Amino acid sequence: MNILFVMYDQLRFDYLSCAGHPHLETPNFDRLAARGVRFTNAYVQSPICGASRMSFYTGRYVSSHGASYNNYPLRVGEMTMGDHLRAAGMDCWLIGKTHMAADAEGMARLGLAPDSVIGARQAECGFDVWARDDGLWAYGPDGYYDERRSPYNEYLNSKGYDGENPWADYATAGTDGDEIASGWMFANADRPANIREEDSETPWLTSEAIAFIDQVKGPWCAHLSYIKPHWPYIVPAPYHAIFGPTDVLPVVRDPRERENPHPVYAAYMEGAVAKAFQREEVRQKVIPAYMGLVKQCDDQLGRLLDHLEATGAAATTMIVLTSDHGDYLGDHWLGEKDLFHDPSVKVPMFVVDPRPEADATRGTTCPALVEAIDLVPSFVEAAGGTIAEHILEGRSLMPWLRGETPVWRECAISEFDYAATSAGQSLGLAPRDCRLFMAFDGRYKLVHAEGGFRPMLFDLDRDPREFEDLAKAGGHDAVIDRLYDRLNAWARRQSQRVTVSDAQIQGNRGASTRRGILPFLVDGSEVPNELTQRYRGKVRQRHVDPD
Amino acid sequence: MNILFVMYDQLRFDYLSCAGHPHLETPNFDRLAARGVRFTNAYVQSPICGASRMSFYTGRYVSSHGASYNNYPLRVGEMTMGDHLRAAGMDCWLIGKTHMAADAEGMARLGLAPDSVIGARQAECGFDVWARDDGLWAYGPDGYYDERRSPYNEYLNSKGYDGENPWADYATAGTDGDEIASGWMFANADRPANIREEDSETPWLTSEAIAFIDQVKGPWCAHLSYIKPHWPYIVPAPYHAIFGPTDVLPVVRDPRERENPHPVYAAYMEGAVAKAFQREEVRQKVIPAYMGLVKQCDDQLGRLLDHLEATGAAATTMIVLTSDHGDYLGDHWLGEKDLFHDPSVKVPMFVVDPRPEADATRGTTCPALVEAIDLVPSFVEAAGGTIAEHILEGRSLMPWLRGETPVWRECAISEFDYAATSAGQSLGLAPRDCRLFMAFDGRYKLVHAEGGFRPMLFDLDRDPREFEDLAKAGGHDAVIDRLYDRLNAWARRQSQRVTVSDAQIQGNRGASTRRGILPFLVDGSEVPNELTQRYRGKVRQRHVDPD
Repeated sequence: MNILFVMYDQLRFDYLSCAGHPHLETPNFDRLAARGVRFTNAYVQSPICGASRMSFYTGRYVSSHGASYNNYPLRVGEMTMGDHLRAAGMDCWLIGKTHMAADAEGMARLGLAPDSVIGARQAECGFDVWARDDGLWAYGPDGYYDERRSPYNEYLNSKGYDGENPWADYATAGTDGDEIASGWMFANADRPANIREEDSETPWLTSEAIAFIDQVKGPWCAHLSYIKPHWPYIVPAPYHAIFGPTDVLPVVRDPRERENPHPVYAAYMEGAVAKAFQREEVRQKVIPAYMGLVKQCDDQLGRLLDHLEATGAAATTMIVLTSDHGDYLGDHWLGEKDLFHDPSVKVPMFVVDPRPEADATRGTTCPALVEAIDLVPSFVEAAGGTIAEHILEGRSLMPWLRGETPVWRECAISEFDYAATSAGQSLGLAPRDCRLFMAFDGRYKLVHAEGGFRPMLFDLDRDPREFEDLAKAGGHDAVIDRLYDRLNAWARRQSQRVTVSDAQIQGNRGASTRRGILPFLVDGSEVPNELTQRYRGKVRQRHVDPD
Repeated sequence: MNILFVMYDQLRFDYLSCAGHPHLETPNFDRLAARGVRFTNAYVQSPICGASRMSFYTGRYVSSHGASYNNYPLRVGEMTMGDHLRAAGMDCWLIGKTHMAADAEGMARLGLAPDSVIGARQAECGFDVWARDDGLWAYGPDGYYDERRSPYNEYLNSKGYDGENPWADYATAGTDGDEIASGWMFANADRPANIREEDSETPWLTSEAIAFIDQVKGPWCAHLSYIKPHWPYIVPAPYHAIFGPTDVLPVVRDPRERENPHPVYAAYMEGAVAKAFQREEVRQKVIPAYMGLVKQCDDQLGRLLDHLEATGAAATTMIVLTSDHGDYLGDHWLGEKDLFHDPSVKVPMFVVDPRPEADATRGTTCPALVEAIDLVPSFVEAAGGTIAEHILEGRSLMPWLRGETPVWRECAISEFDYAATSAGQSLGLAPRDCRLFMAFDGRYKLVHAEGGFRPMLFDLDRDPREFEDLAKAGGHDAVIDRLYDRLNAWARRQSQRVTVSDAQIQGNRGASTRRGILPFLVDGSEVPNELTQRYRGKVRQRHVDPD
């Protein structure tokens, strides 16, 4: 079996028709959901690209792998999906985005050459690279945001789009008469991108995936990792015009949220992104473009599924589909992601296993508290490997697919390190105190902020839109204490004993005794003679005295 | 300046005359204490050799480096004292014991050859090896405990002590007529070891240190790491006969400790080592031998200090002296170490800085809550380097030496992973639940045990001998809550963001904006033109249309 691990970037859990969006028909997402299990409570380990992805790719919490923000390098030697899958006999390939930053210092310290097989995998988060494209070929007065080679820009050049950065000049540019109307500016989000639709990012990457599937022999896991519907919010025709202001859902926000808000939330509400999305005209421009990008993703997913079916590959390919985080789109007075309201931290998660043992659950939903880190163990199980439970902190989802009800976590955890952000700066905190934690037990969501702040608390049963921070007024101490107990038990977890498995520990009990370590004997009569016989016998005399 | 980092193994903090032992004169330890600062509240990060040492050598808590028990490999790439000091221009050498287990799997995964310079340092915990000897050349029916080459056994062979394991046949063997009376058996502890005193372990290693000092040019940090007074409890003449039963201090234990004890403590009190040390005749045999071993250490320390003074090296050598943990010796109904009573978790810690700026504090004691992890940052500061605060979790002790009163920790933390032990087995716990944590604020000592147990609490002001577990009877909730708050804040610490420093984070703020990432613009008027000019200009048209 092969595994096609599809990730979208910044795709909200609820912008799919199968998840209830009333104006955005996504028949191909729905078609996939109908074939497998859709997990309706899937949470990412951090609502930010880089940190979230490093958790997806390592199967470990953010504070375990340490790459807690975009472009913080993943420490050399940290085990990845690729390491685990190759140990199980499955290759692991990348087609698209990872947001991986190589630990160049660590690699140099260990003498790992970036152009060796081992070095390249270390630098690429354990993947073998079919195509790596992180999708942000931004450039400004200080140079490029992403200085790597861009296969997408090379593709565009090959198609006649000229210049050093056709991503910026075509793919994310609209037009305003003779002038570029950049997709960076929300006011331009209703313009069509200056590119033929088939050359835009999502079709290009889909074509790469189809080429990969046709050319590469398995067993493989292929991470098809789309850049969209992440900003810049601009989409080529005809998708720019499919949706309009009447398709925009009412903003989900409430005046109560602005009354005595938690200081970290307050700082976020004052940020430039939030301020922009607090303007209704921004939502009216951006959200139809975002929906158009999702619609294009849906069409390309259909193209991919059609190809898998036409070639027969669907029967031997497990398909997993998710996103690295959501997008506030103005909800809760915010834009982008970073905090822990559901539009930001909850993601779509579909798992389709073509094997007969998963037949009973096709088309069902599962409300278990799923975390991003559950995918690596799921993949290892699907690949027939042994899950390294002393390293992987997630749990295989495969029992749910088989209709079982495994013992499961009672609390989902997510983290956010905002030391690099303007909110961290405006709050004047030391980097180490710029940290947020979410503990969600399926009903109550606690947000803990380091730095001496009070927590936030939401009751999603009574307040599913998360308007009322119950911790503001005091009270609810029992609930808060219970969630803190869960958070702190999690914080005390053993995450770094990665070189010894439980089975090894249990198997080694008594081994040192049998290798002569006996610091408990009074006279030796306490143990069988074989354990002490090498410490008995005739007294030895030195044979030679060199002095 | 050079640094001589002297460690003893299993040396109790209070078995030195400068620390108040009434019958054990240690003039050379005292002489060293008179030259520098003696820290009277120094705690190890785990009261077990391997885990404690990995914290000493990495400057990180046990749950940060993950090598939580003896022979659990330190994960490849984890930075060590050697990495930090070499970055500061100082070599880092080993003379003696580390208890390091190489992460052979991790090294193989990264293609690191054990015989390369980088690979050898990875395998040897960052040290360059002058002599590595872990001191436990035990052997039993299943082979050797330590399968490495033993330079000490080679030395003994060269001195005419024959056989494959003269450590066992001579150095740790006594005599009973014609028969070996092994030092493994406490009943033999009053016999002299079957070896000339000058060939026993402590003099041998001291000679190696003297040879090193005479031959190796600095700047170096040399870790002179003695195996003694660790068991086997047997010492050559004349040290075997210096102390006798009348020198044995009364056992420090109380019947209250056996009333409704904490289940983990109860399991330890039922262990074979504890049972042996609960017998007074065992203490009467073992403790005089232990004192003899300490006395020999003291004499050899004098020999070393004399050499440093005679050669003038003392003036340019910072000397740091400590132990990896203590020894219950029957106190609290226990033997060995593992738990968090002071005889186990508290260690001697002397720092002698020969430079004039430390003159004001010579011969003083300092009661600050010091941890083992403070040594690496102290050494980096002494070496003139920059302390990597995003990696090193301790704090430099150097300000105390200069008579300053730095802002300091309010709580010392220690951890113990007993999954591999018989206590873990007898309690029937999953390996992950076999974990203990100590939080000590200078007065109250909280011990938390995973697995659903109640905590333990001691008030060392009112009960310095730690007889009364205040958590047994209930009450003291405010103190317990306060210590849990400290423990949990510590547990939530950011320990793995080791690839990015605070300074880098702060320096990079705003960098992505200047590299063209602008996901907050409505129309571009919000920012200076230079930030958006590359996204403006004439609309581009594809120059070539290959289709």
